[in-house]
Amino acid sequence: MTIDSVLTSIDSNLDASLARLFDLLKIRSISTDPAFKDECARAASWLADQLNGMGFDASVRATTGNPMVVAHAKSTNASAPHVLFYGHYDVQPVDPLALWEDDPFAPKIVEAEGTKRIVARGAADDKGQVMAFVEACRAFMANGGLPCHVSILFEGEEECGSLSLPAFLAANRQELLADCVLVCDTNMWDKNTPAITTMLRGLVLQEVVIEAASRDLHSGLFGGAAMNPIRVLTRILADLHDANGAVTLPGFYDGVDELPAEVAAQWRALDFDEAAYLGAVGLGEAAGEKGRSVLEQVWSRPTCDVNGIIGGYTGEGTKTVLPSRASAKVSFRLVGHQDPLRIVESFHAFVQARLPSDCTASFHAHGASPAIALPFTSPMLQKARVALTAEWDREAVLIGGGGSIPVIGQFKRDLGMDSLMIGFGLDDDRIHSPNEKYEVKSFHKGARSWARVLVALAE
Amino acid sequence: MTIDSVLTSIDSNLDASLARLFDLLKIRSISTDPAFKDECARAASWLADQLNGMGFDASVRATTGNPMVVAHAKSTNASAPHVLFYGHYDVQPVDPLALWEDDPFAPKIVEAEGTKRIVARGAADDKGQVMAFVEACRAFMANGGLPCHVSILFEGEEECGSLSLPAFLAANRQELLADCVLVCDTNMWDKNTPAITTMLRGLVLQEVVIEAASRDLHSGLFGGAAMNPIRVLTRILADLHDANGAVTLPGFYDGVDELPAEVAAQWRALDFDEAAYLGAVGLGEAAGEKGRSVLEQVWSRPTCDVNGIIGGYTGEGTKTVLPSRASAKVSFRLVGHQDPLRIVESFHAFVQARLPSDCTASFHAHGASPAIALPFTSPMLQKARVALTAEWDREAVLIGGGGSIPVIGQFKRDLGMDSLMIGFGLDDDRIHSPNEKYEVKSFHKGARSWARVLVALAE
Repeated sequence: MTIDSVLTSIDSNLDASLARLFDLLKIRSISTDPAFKDECARAASWLADQLNGMGFDASVRATTGNPMVVAHAKSTNASAPHVLFYGHYDVQPVDPLALWEDDPFAPKIVEAEGTKRIVARGAADDKGQVMAFVEACRAFMANGGLPCHVSILFEGEEECGSLSLPAFLAANRQELLADCVLVCDTNMWDKNTPAITTMLRGLVLQEVVIEAASRDLHSGLFGGAAMNPIRVLTRILADLHDANGAVTLPGFYDGVDELPAEVAAQWRALDFDEAAYLGAVGLGEAAGEKGRSVLEQVWSRPTCDVNGIIGGYTGEGTKTVLPSRASAKVSFRLVGHQDPLRIVESFHAFVQARLPSDCTASFHAHGASPAIALPFTSPMLQKARVALTAEWDREAVLIGGGGSIPVIGQFKRDLGMDSLMIGFGLDDDRIHSPNEKYEVKSFHKGARSWARVLVALAE
Repeated sequence: MTIDSVLTSIDSNLDASLARLFDLLKIRSISTDPAFKDECARAASWLADQLNGMGFDASVRATTGNPMVVAHAKSTNASAPHVLFYGHYDVQPVDPLALWEDDPFAPKIVEAEGTKRIVARGAADDKGQVMAFVEACRAFMANGGLPCHVSILFEGEEECGSLSLPAFLAANRQELLADCVLVCDTNMWDKNTPAITTMLRGLVLQEVVIEAASRDLHSGLFGGAAMNPIRVLTRILADLHDANGAVTLPGFYDGVDELPAEVAAQWRALDFDEAAYLGAVGLGEAAGEKGRSVLEQVWSRPTCDVNGIIGGYTGEGTKTVLPSRASAKVSFRLVGHQDPLRIVESFHAFVQARLPSDCTASFHAHGASPAIALPFTSPMLQKARVALTAEWDREAVLIGGGGSIPVIGQFKRDLGMDSLMIGFGLDDDRIHSPNEKYEVKSFHKGARSWARVLVALAE
């Protein structure tokens, strides 16, 4: 086996690889909505079948939520390192459906802006990224065998808080232990420049419900005298930021460190165009803490955002109602050593302190994970960087990531494993949005890149 | 004809009267939702048919929205005064439907708390009140004729801003002119005490939409750097009240007068139990301007309330999205000489002044009407008060009303007519809420009361 034969195999089987990816994209595995529970199970079974067909020992494992897929395959080299590849088969909801140009679950290749794109919900997040790795493994196994021992863990609740994962990791610790974790849920720096993500923000997801009167009231008969929970909720949410864009929760910035000077210098050297980044989505002004660059705001600074709010009458026309309740979904992106549980406690206290006597607040937790970071001195980081540079003919850059992959923190904390985050998504892939896409080039060269990385890690 | 024979006729025909009311209540005439446009037209036709059957000259009149019903009948006494009765056949939406104990459009009699109640959407607001007057007219016309010349105007857009009404009044001014208007859309003081409402708050309805990015964004990739329209909207809405519950719009209190001493004294003399009023809906503290009584807060003080708010992901679970837009339905209740158009302008300026450069605001107007008041010295007010006192054996009280009936301002401004507001609803009728009801006693004695009022006005 040589790397060349594997790369040639990936090249010559691209159409078949795409057809398999399309089969997976057709499965409506939306994890946050219980109506799609069977579709999630179907995606898990499909993946296990694929892996077994390639020569993995793969199985679907039940959880209290959506099932896991676990698979193992040995290298022909008994002393090779052992990697655990992690990905997820679940996807985000597709609303607002009207903004999709086509059925989100009818994947197709679209040519636009000089590139071929796979358009479908989950194309980039995370099915395309997952299958790029699977196809790399397929090429090795059809051409003499894997250079590393490879274990695989696919979960189906990444988009809704990974609620089943901690218990599953704890219960299957021995089976899942490896030398390192490979994670594919990240982006390139740009369409020509590969990247390794070395820091990711944590995430706290909270839903708060404010309730006042025991029933909806007529705003004429009661308006003025009856407390309106929307008024209470908007006051609380407005108070979460100060005029400089900083978050006002007491203790929120505990554990947030300034960036080391050398990292800050590397980020400044990146050819990042703030105006183009914001302009691409119709914006022109960085909305976070004043005096921070955009890269700091999305990579190394914590945030608070309201991801959803609803209360009262929201249909056509008007209704002069004082609603009995209003609610909001609030998320916090964490960095450094911020403690997710202390953030939750501080948020609850913040809300309670602003409640009039006639209102109650209830909370629903949808996940809480700390930020994570890979040491810049890690040998596997250096090996992977060389491999990526060879494939893309452009030096791989080390970046931060604004999104959260909670499982990485759990791998570190509970299993002691560092994660190497390599992905081939692009910033304009519209993940979580209508018309999500993944470049065919990302998929194809992604598979080739993983082949090179596996060989490099084994050296 | 004597009043006694008419009252006896109303008593003996109660079951038939209720059956007719039920026919009207079965029609799903929700005006704010275009899906029910045909049902609104059906309600109008049903009313015109009823009135023609009684001897009125009634017709359905097309508008750009839902149709009007106009009817006329002469008194046998040519020199009798001429009254115009106004009501509406449209109803509020029924959501949240799950909180109704039964189909909102399957009216039935329920016995509860020692009374018989008609339960259905529109039972109290306004179909039951409308039909109480119609049945009084029916009794006169079957027993020698009407004591006054009676014209009737029913509209079908009262619950969504009465958009067609101003042009209709202007175009049919001569036909609709009368000595006074009778309006039935108000309440008793309590279940034993009749009331005449002499002041009503005006209403400004505005919807505001805040837009930021050109599409929904991933809160991980953009969170911190991209402006979140929910953050902007909640800040604006929170700023609308100060810590004392007062509205902060510049100029908002221009034209708001303190209550005359004698009226304030009369209100203080009413046996109004603030704790019971708020406690009945699960509240314990007046939410309006500090230092004002509850009756002031709902009758003689202006308000601002958010009747609905929506933005981002509001389904099950979570979605880490930064939405591209968020919107709220805001209403202002007006008193005294507050100018609705100046309130609208002040609100728009208030919003614009708080917009970051990356956001735009758009507004949708759903109606704007000033507050209205009937002079305490009006002779018809005194006549009606005596008639109501005779029927209920309890002195009729003069009260304010927190709700708005925009047409009354238009009758005064455009046609020069004062309105006499008499209604038999109760504060616990749950209008605009699930399980709306109207007491059978309100319906029955309401018809008898209207019979007495018509006779009194003719004297």
